[in-house]
Amino acid sequence: MSKDKTFRPKARLPRGFRDRSSLEIIQERGMLDAIRHVYENYGFEALETPIVEYADALGKFLPDQDRPNEGVFSFKDDDGQWLSLRYDLTAPLARYVAENQQKLPRPFRRYQIGTNFRNEKPGPGRFREFTQCDADTVGTTAPSADAEMLMMFADTLEAVGLKRGDYAIKLSSRRLLDVLLESAEVGAGDGKTRGIVLRAIDKLDRLGVRGVEALLGDGRKDESGDFTHGAKLSKPAIDAILRFVSAPPLDLPSWWQSVVPGQKSADATAALEELDEILKLVRQCGYEDRVRFDPGIVRGLDYYTSVVFEAQLAMPTRNNAGEDVIMGSVGGGGRYDDLVARFTGQPVPAVGFSIGVSRLAAALRAADEGSSPLVVVLTLDKNDVASSFRIAAELRAAGIRAEPYVGEGGMKAQLKYADRRGASVAVIEGDDERARGEVTLKDLARGAERAKSVESRADWIGERAAQTSTKRETLIEGVRAILGRKA
Amino acid sequence: MSKDKTFRPKARLPRGFRDRSSLEIIQERGMLDAIRHVYENYGFEALETPIVEYADALGKFLPDQDRPNEGVFSFKDDDGQWLSLRYDLTAPLARYVAENQQKLPRPFRRYQIGTNFRNEKPGPGRFREFTQCDADTVGTTAPSADAEMLMMFADTLEAVGLKRGDYAIKLSSRRLLDVLLESAEVGAGDGKTRGIVLRAIDKLDRLGVRGVEALLGDGRKDESGDFTHGAKLSKPAIDAILRFVSAPPLDLPSWWQSVVPGQKSADATAALEELDEILKLVRQCGYEDRVRFDPGIVRGLDYYTSVVFEAQLAMPTRNNAGEDVIMGSVGGGGRYDDLVARFTGQPVPAVGFSIGVSRLAAALRAADEGSSPLVVVLTLDKNDVASSFRIAAELRAAGIRAEPYVGEGGMKAQLKYADRRGASVAVIEGDDERARGEVTLKDLARGAERAKSVESRADWIGERAAQTSTKRETLIEGVRAILGRKA
Repeated sequence: MSKDKTFRPKARLPRGFRDRSSLEIIQERGMLDAIRHVYENYGFEALETPIVEYADALGKFLPDQDRPNEGVFSFKDDDGQWLSLRYDLTAPLARYVAENQQKLPRPFRRYQIGTNFRNEKPGPGRFREFTQCDADTVGTTAPSADAEMLMMFADTLEAVGLKRGDYAIKLSSRRLLDVLLESAEVGAGDGKTRGIVLRAIDKLDRLGVRGVEALLGDGRKDESGDFTHGAKLSKPAIDAILRFVSAPPLDLPSWWQSVVPGQKSADATAALEELDEILKLVRQCGYEDRVRFDPGIVRGLDYYTSVVFEAQLAMPTRNNAGEDVIMGSVGGGGRYDDLVARFTGQPVPAVGFSIGVSRLAAALRAADEGSSPLVVVLTLDKNDVASSFRIAAELRAAGIRAEPYVGEGGMKAQLKYADRRGASVAVIEGDDERARGEVTLKDLARGAERAKSVESRADWIGERAAQTSTKRETLIEGVRAILGRKA
Repeated sequence: MSKDKTFRPKARLPRGFRDRSSLEIIQERGMLDAIRHVYENYGFEALETPIVEYADALGKFLPDQDRPNEGVFSFKDDDGQWLSLRYDLTAPLARYVAENQQKLPRPFRRYQIGTNFRNEKPGPGRFREFTQCDADTVGTTAPSADAEMLMMFADTLEAVGLKRGDYAIKLSSRRLLDVLLESAEVGAGDGKTRGIVLRAIDKLDRLGVRGVEALLGDGRKDESGDFTHGAKLSKPAIDAILRFVSAPPLDLPSWWQSVVPGQKSADATAALEELDEILKLVRQCGYEDRVRFDPGIVRGLDYYTSVVFEAQLAMPTRNNAGEDVIMGSVGGGGRYDDLVARFTGQPVPAVGFSIGVSRLAAALRAADEGSSPLVVVLTLDKNDVASSFRIAAELRAAGIRAEPYVGEGGMKAQLKYADRRGASVAVIEGDDERARGEVTLKDLARGAERAKSVESRADWIGERAAQTSTKRETLIEGVRAILGRKA
C-alpha cells in the first residue's frame, strides 16, 4: 500500500464493470445450481480452464500484427508473450481439446460456468465482464448430438423456472444459408459482405422484413437519422434471402425449393437431411412444442459451420426502467467443426451452446425471493458481550441466520444498524430483561410499517406493539414465531 | 478466428495457469458451499466486486511511476488508464467501502469468494490464478469483531470437515510486535529492515529458532548453499525478538514484561488489553480449545495494524508426490485500520480473514468421493436413436446421471467410451434385446475387475458375468441394483 500520504486515488469502479450485491448473487446462485444440475445429469463433466490464455491460442493475435485484437483485454507476460482475458468459453475449450486430445474420451462432453471479458464500449446492461454457462459435445458429427443439445437447452430453461410456452428454441442451418448466399453470389470468399448479410438477418426480430431488406440493399437510416451502409446485393439475391427468412417452413425440401427454385446442391441436400434428422429426434422425444425450425436464426459468431440455434423468451420481462420488454435471446449455440483444427490442422466436429447468465437472471428476477431472514442480536452490556454471542450461536444452530452487533454504537445506533441490514428481528437483552431472565424480540418490519402508518406522537405505541418479551429459554420459539408471521 | 490456414498456434496453457477437471471442481464446490453457508449464517452478505480494478485503486500504481507494480497483471484501458487484475479481495473491498460508505450499514459485513491473480514466478503448487474466500467486518474497532472472526474461522474449518484438534487458530498482535521492534530500534520508518524481520519470524515453523536467529542477524545459508541476507540486528534486539516468539504465553502482562523488561508503553498496554478482551470472549464462548495466542504468528502482509491470526493444520496431508506433509497455514487474517483511508483520508477500522481454497481443498481431498455415478446408454440402431434418448431421459428423471452415446462409433467404440468416461453402467439395447422387450445392463467396474483377474482366454466369462438382462420396464430397478452393489 502507498506510504505517500498525499496521494489519494479516487475510489471508483472501472468503466463497464460493476459490483454485485447479495440479492443478485443469491438469486443467480440458485439459477446456476439448477443449470449445473441439468448439465451434470446429462453426463457433461465440469471443466475449468483459466481466465487467462495466450492471445494466439484464442485466435486473437495473428503473426502479422504487432498486438492482439483490440476487442480483448491483453497484456504481455514477463517473457514477452501476449496473454489475453478470455472472451468466451469456446476458444479455451478448443485449446484444451487440442492439447489433451489423446487422453479425452470421444465424444468429449464438458460444461463450464465462467466469467468472460470483452474490451468493448459498455452501454446500458452491457458490461465488460459477464458470466456464461456453456455445454459442448466435441468429436462427433452425429445429428443426435445436435438434437441432444436442443433438448437439454429446453430442460435447462425449465429447470431454472421458465414455463413451457414462455420460451422457444429456434433452429436453423448456417450451411443452408451459405448455399443460398453462394447461389446469390455472396461467396464465402467475400467475408465482409457475408458479415453484413448475417448481421442484417440477425436484426429481423427488431427491424422487420422491410428493415432487413434495406440493410441487404443500399442501407438504412434509423430513427435517430444514423445511416447504416447496406450489403448492396442484387434484387434477386435480396428476394431469395427474404424468402429464406420469412417463408413458413412447412416441409423442408419444398420450402427450400421455393427459396431457390431449381437449385441443386449436394451441400444443401446434406444440410436438409441433417436438419430433418435432428427434428425427427426432437419429435420422437416429445420436444416439438419447445424446439422448432426458424430460418431467421443466424447467430452473430463467424465460426459456426452448420446448425445454429437460439433460445428466445416469448414472455415480457420488466427492465430496470420498469418497462415490460421482450428480452429475446437468452443464449444460443451451434455446430463449429473447425475450431480445434486451428491448432492441429485436423477437423474436430463439435456442437454446443452458451447461456448468458445476466440476461436469463433478469428474466427470472421477479419470481425470486432473495436471502433468508436475518436476526441481529444487540450488544448492550459491554462487559458481557459473550451473552449476545451465545444468543447468536444458538439461533444459528437452530438454522436461523444471526449475528451479534460488533460495532461501537449505543442502542439507537444498533437498532438503526439492524434496520439498515434489512434484519427481520432484533434481540434485545438489557439489564431489565436480564434481571427477569428474559429477552425482548423486536419485529423490525412490523415496527417500520406501524411507524409509517401512525402519527409521530403515537410512534411509541407502534414500537411497543412490535415488541414481545420471552423467557431466555424460549428464545428460538419466539424468533420462529415472528419469522413465521412474515412468511 | 484466423482465416490464415498456414498459421497454427500451439495449443498450450499459459505458464502458471492450469485446467481443473471435474473431480477437483466437484470436491471444491462442496467445500465452498459449506464455507458460504457458515459466512451467511453469521450474517455476512455476499458481495462480488469485478476481477478488473484500476491499478491505483489497488494501491499498485503510484503517481511517480510509469507503470504499475510488476507483481500484478496490468494493462491500459482505451482511455489510457491502467487496469489490473485484482491480487486479493481486500483491496477491492476497501475501494468498495470508500465508494459506497454513505449507504452501507456500519459495521459493514460482507463475504466474497473469488479468483485472484498474481504475476509471480510459478512453482510447484504455486499458481498465478487462485481462489480465496474472504469475510470482513468494516467500521468497528470493537475487539468483539476480532473475536467473532476467530470463532467463525473455527466453525468454517469444521463445517468443511476438519476435526477439532486437527487445526488451530493462532493469534498474535502486530501492534505488540511493533512496540518491540521500536524498542529494539527497528522503527516503522525503516520499512525494509522491518520487512526482513517480519519474513524471518514468519519462517519460525520451517527454520526453527536457530534459523530465525540467523536471519535476524548476519544471514543464513540454506541446504542448497544459497545465502539469505539478514536484518543485521543487535544481539539484545535479536534476543528480545526470540523471547517474543518463543516464550510460553502464560499470562499476557507477565510474558510481555519478560520479553521487554521494564518497558512501559501506552501502545503495548492497549494491545495487551485488546488481546485480553478477545481471548476472554473466546473462552466465554467455549472456543479456547480452538483459538490460542501464539506470538510466532506475524502474517506476511504489510497492511495489518493490530491483531493477526492464522489457521494451521496439525494433521498431515498427502501431497502430489504421495508424501505426508504438515501443510501449515490454510488461511489467515487480521485487523487493518488504514486501507480505506488510502482513498478518503479517514481511518475506517476493519478486520477480516481469507481462506486459501486450493490449500484447504488439498488437505480435505482424501475424504471426498467425487461425482455421482454415470450411466451411458449405447446407441446401436442408427435408425432408432430416439430409443436410447428415451432410456437416458427416464434414468435422469429417476435422479440417475445418464447420457445416450452421441458419437459415431460402433459397439466396441461405445463400450470403450463408457469405460473412459468412468461410467458405472452401460445400457445395451441391441436387436436381440429389443425383440425380447429387454435391455442388457453391463456393470462396467465389475467387468474391468474380472477382466484383470482372469486369463485373457477366459475374458468372455468375466464379460458375461458382469452383464444382466432385465425387462425394459424394470430398467430403473436394474440400474439401481448395480449402483447399490457398488455403494
